[in-house]
Amino acid sequence: MSTNINWPHSQVAEDLARLRQAAPLTQCVTNIVVAGFTANVLLAVGASPAMVDALDEIPEFVPIAQGLLVNIGTLANDTPRAAVRAAAVARASGTPWVLDPVAAGATKFRSALVTEILEHRPTVIKGNASEILALAGAQGGGKGPDSTADSADAVPAAITVARQTDAVVAITGVVDYATDGAEVVAVPGGHDLMPRVTGTGCSLGGVIAAFLGAGADPLRATVAGLAVFAAAGERASQGAAGPGSFAAAFLDELYRIGTEW
Amino acid sequence: MSTNINWPHSQVAEDLARLRQAAPLTQCVTNIVVAGFTANVLLAVGASPAMVDALDEIPEFVPIAQGLLVNIGTLANDTPRAAVRAAAVARASGTPWVLDPVAAGATKFRSALVTEILEHRPTVIKGNASEILALAGAQGGGKGPDSTADSADAVPAAITVARQTDAVVAITGVVDYATDGAEVVAVPGGHDLMPRVTGTGCSLGGVIAAFLGAGADPLRATVAGLAVFAAAGERASQGAAGPGSFAAAFLDELYRIGTEW
Amino acid sequence: MSTNINWPHSQVAEDLARLRQAAPLTQCVTNIVVAGFTANVLLAVGASPAMVDALDEIPEFVPIAQGLLVNIGTLANDTPRAAVRAAAVARASGTPWVLDPVAAGATKFRSALVTEILEHRPTVIKGNASEILALAGAQGGGKGPDSTADSADAVPAAITVARQTDAVVAITGVVDYATDGAEVVAVPGGHDLMPRVTGTGCSLGGVIAAFLGAGADPLRATVAGLAVFAAAGERASQGAAGPGSFAAAFLDELYRIGTEW
Repeated sequence: MSTNINWPHSQVAEDLARLRQAAPLTQCVTNIVVAGFTANVLLAVGASPAMVDALDEIPEFVPIAQGLLVNIGTLANDTPRAAVRAAAVARASGTPWVLDPVAAGATKFRSALVTEILEHRPTVIKGNASEILALAGAQGGGKGPDSTADSADAVPAAITVARQTDAVVAITGVVDYATDGAEVVAVPGGHDLMPRVTGTGCSLGGVIAAFLGAGADPLRATVAGLAVFAAAGERASQGAAGPGSFAAAFLDELYRIGTEW
Repeated sequence: MSTNINWPHSQVAEDLARLRQAAPLTQCVTNIVVAGFTANVLLAVGASPAMVDALDEIPEFVPIAQGLLVNIGTLANDTPRAAVRAAAVARASGTPWVLDPVAAGATKFRSALVTEILEHRPTVIKGNASEILALAGAQGGGKGPDSTADSADAVPAAITVARQTDAVVAITGVVDYATDGAEVVAVPGGHDLMPRVTGTGCSLGGVIAAFLGAGADPLRATVAGLAVFAAAGERASQGAAGPGSFAAAFLDELYRIGTEW
Repeated sequence: MSTNINWPHSQVAEDLARLRQAAPLTQCVTNIVVAGFTANVLLAVGASPAMVDALDEIPEFVPIAQGLLVNIGTLANDTPRAAVRAAAVARASGTPWVLDPVAAGATKFRSALVTEILEHRPTVIKGNASEILALAGAQGGGKGPDSTADSADAVPAAITVARQTDAVVAITGVVDYATDGAEVVAVPGGHDLMPRVTGTGCSLGGVIAAFLGAGADPLRATVAGLAVFAAAGERASQGAAGPGSFAAAFLDELYRIGTEW
């Protein structure tokens, strides 16, 4: 039922070349754990990141950003209000945006926030299986930010969420999936060191926002992000001695991928 | 008077295998400088980190966390209140927790906060010599977060603090020490590049919390964390050209250690 | 009209040796994206960083810090007030300090804050061409934190700002410039991977603050920071496969530079 996309793939290569040409200004309202890594991933892939997160600056900045990531990893202080505000402004200004509902379902506090943000209609929702299951109202059984379910098991939930929200939904896992509620695309690849590096999931949301900012339609942008990450992860794993050397090699490969064409 | 523990050591290896089996959900209320590195250290060693730091989410999350770190490195906004609240909830819910009293004694603001947090009875307190001396009411002479005293000189202070607070107290330095107020364990090892990488101390607190979360008793959990860090630090220093390559190799070694048995 | 400074240079080597001797306590009020990298850069070069950012701790800490960086990269919550307060206390206590006006001109919110901070008279202002042009009242055309102008084109603006504010002004770019309003020093070097690593600019402000804290006069401290970064960047690029391996090598080279003399 689903089509498979693997790097090298001409459509993804084209989208990546366009991203590098455009260097889209990609705003991230994200968490204190991965803000630095996310900026580095965006710079490596060729985007121009801006981690603008102040309540009073968001209304000015979101309209000039070409793509936006809203990630709810850590929620201290004004972060919940900043996430909601960024989403609301993006909807009003037409800035395409990605929601990463980190650890959705883990607490009532977090679930209530996700419900509020969803009202502003994300262009893309990207989560792991537990998070997507939680969004569909199922018991995802997530353990904090880590998933305890397989990505394939969450595909029906992803289709449901896509239809309910009119967003493209991506599920990350050993195989990644993307769906607009009709079509399902499977993206194999990556490496089991990836979930051992914090921010590999969170920064993917930023890269999808960058692909959106460079003009790709939502399903293509999502698939492009997944495919580039899967390929860079596979390549980085070769010669990596563990998650530390993997993380550095992953940035290197994001920077190099596509230049071999 | 003190016993020495070095890796390889069968008790530590056993605790590490148990940690990896359990992958304990380890919550960190920590600072903006080291949140990412701490998550990476916890993932490398085999734990499941959750950097949940919002005032309104802490009461829900601490009871489901298996171990908790409270680190007061940076204290902007609600962080002092979050630290106190996490400590209070942990005490009420029985979640074992580690206090890292970063730069205790450096300012009155910080000392007052440490005093307030200590009322909630940490399971383990981990600091450098200056910090432990400050907790014992002595003049530690710390220079911001860096210690200006030797770890061996702080052992009497550590014993005093352990007896006063009923916590296990760890002092990091060229040789690390852990004491429950009766027994003193010395853990040699590590490398002088370790204090040149931010977060090597802070993330140790997280790893001790993970060992606690996996069921080790406080002294064993502390010694296990110290011994694993000392060995990984030694191994990572081989071939490191400086603190950048050391940090990556340190994560690699944390991931690999114990798999050679 | 401008003199050129390249590493190896005896004056810079002397200032670096002095910095390592003094290990100046260098406070950073900086952003969530680069706080960790900035601390690592400061530790690598030989300073003692302290990322103290709480409103109520700043009045106690700035007077004991030997140098201070105020960086406005992210501005959520109390950060704008913390930046202004740190600047005000530094002026009152005579602590030399560096302003990094990140993305000045990008929003009215940010421009207003920069104007307010400038009233407290920074010792050094360090920015990219777009930021320095914005400070001079010109249209810098910055795209978020990334410059869209050449550093050489901003030299007249830097001279204007230096004369207006009585600060030394540094412009980073392919060639870096520093001026006190009279003399202009050009510092070539670096590598085009540097802007692909987040925090290479932000951490430079910290290193200049450390040189100030070790007693160098403002123009010398600025040139020393620029020259050390340019040389470490050049060296790190050799053998780097991309921005990930470059970032690790950059820290290694900052740690090693000068020890070859």
